[in-house]
Amino acid sequence: MADFISRRDVDFLLYEWLNVEELTERSRYAEHSRDTFDAVLDLSADIATKRFAPHRKKGDQVEPTVGPDGKVVLIDEIKDALDTFAESGLLAGSFDEAVGGMQLPAVVSEAAMTFFRAANPATTSYLFLTIGNANLLVEYGTPEQIDAWVRPMLEGKFFGTMCLSEPEAGSSLADITTKAVPARDGTYRIAGTKMWITGGDHELTENIVHLVLAKAPGGGPGVKGISLFVVPKYLTDGTRNDVALVGLNHKMGNHGTTNALLNFGDGTHRPAGDAGAVGYLVGEEHKGLAYMFHMMNEARVAVGLQATATGYAGYLASVEYAKARTQGRPVNAKDPSLPQVAIIEHADVKRMLLAQKAYVEGALALGLYCTRLVDEQRSGTEPDSARAHLLLEVLTPIAKSWPSQWCLEANSLAIQVHGGYGYTKEFDVEQAYRDNRLNAIHEGAHGIHGLDLLGRKVVMHDGAGLTLLAERITATINKAETHVGTRQHADALRGALTRLVDITGTLWAAGDISVTLANSTLYLEAAGHVVMAWIWLEQLLAAADGNGDFYDGKRAAGRFFFTYELPKVGPLFDLLASLDTSTVDAVPSWF
Amino acid sequence: MADFISRRDVDFLLYEWLNVEELTERSRYAEHSRDTFDAVLDLSADIATKRFAPHRKKGDQVEPTVGPDGKVVLIDEIKDALDTFAESGLLAGSFDEAVGGMQLPAVVSEAAMTFFRAANPATTSYLFLTIGNANLLVEYGTPEQIDAWVRPMLEGKFFGTMCLSEPEAGSSLADITTKAVPARDGTYRIAGTKMWITGGDHELTENIVHLVLAKAPGGGPGVKGISLFVVPKYLTDGTRNDVALVGLNHKMGNHGTTNALLNFGDGTHRPAGDAGAVGYLVGEEHKGLAYMFHMMNEARVAVGLQATATGYAGYLASVEYAKARTQGRPVNAKDPSLPQVAIIEHADVKRMLLAQKAYVEGALALGLYCTRLVDEQRSGTEPDSARAHLLLEVLTPIAKSWPSQWCLEANSLAIQVHGGYGYTKEFDVEQAYRDNRLNAIHEGAHGIHGLDLLGRKVVMHDGAGLTLLAERITATINKAETHVGTRQHADALRGALTRLVDITGTLWAAGDISVTLANSTLYLEAAGHVVMAWIWLEQLLAAADGNGDFYDGKRAAGRFFFTYELPKVGPLFDLLASLDTSTVDAVPSWF
Repeated sequence: MADFISRRDVDFLLYEWLNVEELTERSRYAEHSRDTFDAVLDLSADIATKRFAPHRKKGDQVEPTVGPDGKVVLIDEIKDALDTFAESGLLAGSFDEAVGGMQLPAVVSEAAMTFFRAANPATTSYLFLTIGNANLLVEYGTPEQIDAWVRPMLEGKFFGTMCLSEPEAGSSLADITTKAVPARDGTYRIAGTKMWITGGDHELTENIVHLVLAKAPGGGPGVKGISLFVVPKYLTDGTRNDVALVGLNHKMGNHGTTNALLNFGDGTHRPAGDAGAVGYLVGEEHKGLAYMFHMMNEARVAVGLQATATGYAGYLASVEYAKARTQGRPVNAKDPSLPQVAIIEHADVKRMLLAQKAYVEGALALGLYCTRLVDEQRSGTEPDSARAHLLLEVLTPIAKSWPSQWCLEANSLAIQVHGGYGYTKEFDVEQAYRDNRLNAIHEGAHGIHGLDLLGRKVVMHDGAGLTLLAERITATINKAETHVGTRQHADALRGALTRLVDITGTLWAAGDISVTLANSTLYLEAAGHVVMAWIWLEQLLAAADGNGDFYDGKRAAGRFFFTYELPKVGPLFDLLASLDTSTVDAVPSWF
Repeated sequence: MADFISRRDVDFLLYEWLNVEELTERSRYAEHSRDTFDAVLDLSADIATKRFAPHRKKGDQVEPTVGPDGKVVLIDEIKDALDTFAESGLLAGSFDEAVGGMQLPAVVSEAAMTFFRAANPATTSYLFLTIGNANLLVEYGTPEQIDAWVRPMLEGKFFGTMCLSEPEAGSSLADITTKAVPARDGTYRIAGTKMWITGGDHELTENIVHLVLAKAPGGGPGVKGISLFVVPKYLTDGTRNDVALVGLNHKMGNHGTTNALLNFGDGTHRPAGDAGAVGYLVGEEHKGLAYMFHMMNEARVAVGLQATATGYAGYLASVEYAKARTQGRPVNAKDPSLPQVAIIEHADVKRMLLAQKAYVEGALALGLYCTRLVDEQRSGTEPDSARAHLLLEVLTPIAKSWPSQWCLEANSLAIQVHGGYGYTKEFDVEQAYRDNRLNAIHEGAHGIHGLDLLGRKVVMHDGAGLTLLAERITATINKAETHVGTRQHADALRGALTRLVDITGTLWAAGDISVTLANSTLYLEAAGHVVMAWIWLEQLLAAADGNGDFYDGKRAAGRFFFTYELPKVGPLFDLLASLDTSTVDAVPSWF
């Protein structure tokens, strides 16, 4: 079985590029050392390989069902894997020691998670949601809420969910209709339907902690009226709360992850004799969406890393296949009686491997860079930590969307390298492709991040975020220009960055928001390629003095990105600069 | 339920662009008229809607199995649909009256087939293989072979297959090892293993006619030693031939189509007491691959049309969804209490619909254009028919590959328009995406067509094919330059065509075939976009005087292609012109 993530690459990114060891000089991480980081990575790779990977295919083939007793039935291997994970303490990896965590740098914790994400995306999803949920409650919950809900989640006794979407409100959260009515005891009664709830129901844990967006009386219209509630499946006294599973969605991929439609407060259960799900307000009323968005950066970067890991696993599988499978002869061979060669000898197969390598290693670097910014927020001094936060705000839509697009493309190339075999369930790559298609949809659909980046992130604080990003990229360019091996790439990136900044100004000078945003998704994609070129230039600088296959491979993938990929931004920028309004002008009756 | 193919669009392409009515002036099609063409299209749309579409999802959910008796078990609806199709006479649509056909123009017959392809790709595959098989035998078989095998196939009593690939020889047919040993009675005994056999076994028909590539004694090495044989599942006297089903492949999509591993001559059955599958030579010994390739153009264009139809169905489904689903508000709306709008009002959704429309309508036009060339081959006078053949040779790799790439992208966009719903099996678009992923793999994997186009088609006959293509495109440009509405597009296409021709020369001047072909897949993709721009320019000219939504929509999609898509060739051409050898130079140990 192929590896899922190259440990060598992870080590390079953490230690040779992001200087993660330096973090141990900070008080927050003073208990740690490269040894403890390595131990976490070793342990993760080991559990991922032994407990997560083996049921990846079975979890795909045996989809969750709802049993006659109304309970969700999953294959046993999922619970076994998650229990092992929880016992290892990894669930609390990056959490504070005060809540029972290891207080690891987020970048190390997320790097460790990529092994699980790559080995088995569906099983790992339960953890991802639980960690996100716990992160939010640690930040905004009361000490009592942390004790009641966070600690059991970090021990793996409870899992968590995020309940945002409703049947009529997916991308448009302003339109949610779930209601929260204050009760006399300070709790609320929640009523409404939530959908697309990952891990929304199961018997994996004693309890499920739902974080639910709902509208309490007195809020303004739209997003201003939204509050956030903890709504557990079981109350602390063991009473079943009024949260009912309506059904599970059957999906193209990620079969092992339950995805549920839930009714809150429909009277299926009647805690304390009344219909309505008991909910506990988190923080203040009407600020729920702000809390949710505060944690969204990390969740979105994590989705990007999930897409990355799925792409990475497919890449390594296709490398293994291409080295083992013989077929055909070199194009300049004339003698058909010569033995066939491994397909990795063919230029087009090498192109498909170089492309995958450029996508997945680039995406992993971007995701870890962003997670390193989270550590800077948490442990840095001002103004560095504020700047890290600002930079993360700008990079988040890209860190989520770019891997969701290009690591899916990597999975498609991995299928193509396998030929007909890649289309069969006998190999792993078709599942990776199906699993990965989700990532451009959830945690904000692709287009939403275009609106976020162009409509909000690059203009907030008078464009301070974009300015900061441009400064960081320029600093890299300046360094790279002094090296023969990277000078040409540095020049290309300087040109692309200048265009990005100029065109951002052009778009905002249009004077009509609908024209400015007419092609915001393409702006996202162009900006994504510029950022990825920067990330590759960073890696090339970090690898500049390295010798041997690993470094040669890094240089080849970096060169590939600059030669085959970055030039794609040219036509995108031309289109954006032209303020084309084909999209705005199109009339529904034309379709 | 949405339509699968726009009949209005088909009529436009056939009657307003390709002047198909003109064909009825030729003796071969003199029995036909627009009325008979329309009747075939009406009948096809009707049967496709009533008999093929309803079990599309069930055929996906209930995969074929091998029963305890060794027979393939399929859902009943597949046989019912195929029987209805056969009873309609459509199987023999484009065949000569002399063999029981309707002698329809191929372009009409293929246009009719798109309704079936769109309604249910998996069920339609059985027909596609049968028609291809019969086409080949009509061309190269003896009258006795035609009576024995073709007539029952055209009546739907037998189905056909093409048995090319083997476990160690997929793209590399030179390496097949299946043997054919002459017997005293003039037949051969065939022994070997064939895989990826679409429709390789089933109980849908009384018999299955396998066309098998095998090596007979005395042939040269490589492809020169390959002969072609008819190897039926049952001999004409009802004896079971020695063809054994080893197993069915389980695939990402196209579940309703059996895809089999077959053993020929392994002694499972012993016709006339001896092991070895009885085979009947088609044509002459050692010319089998040439026969197969002669029919390959049509088969490859048909695969492109299958990809197109699957993309088209997804497009129309996403249009219907986007018009019905409300979500969010215009970006310039300030009042969150206004009702939500249909998502087709959002610019990014319109972008995704325009892109799909540009891909699927463009691909349908290309596929029908190529099929119109088949009719010109069959019914035209010299030199027109020879020129049609030459042009078809050059266009075939593009007609196969371009839709396989871009109509898959259309299906991905159709999912994206549906949001989370698109990822579920509740809607149809995820299945379309899975089904369509096959088309870049079978009938020659994507990269094979790059080698075919750049390595063979554009240089054969001293480049006569490319010259002819450039002449045709230039003729369209010259016409388009005289119209205000198309002048700008014509100029853009002239520039792109000039670069294509120049770069073809540059690549071939490299003096090293491995450098020439280093990026042949990207050459294919760039040439594909140039050809598609030409096809769109042709459509824009045909639509120039039209008024109303249909024509406005055509113009919008054409404009979209020229504005959003054609510029993508710029960076591809730059890369090709640089004779970059990153792919050739990459070393396996770097991966």
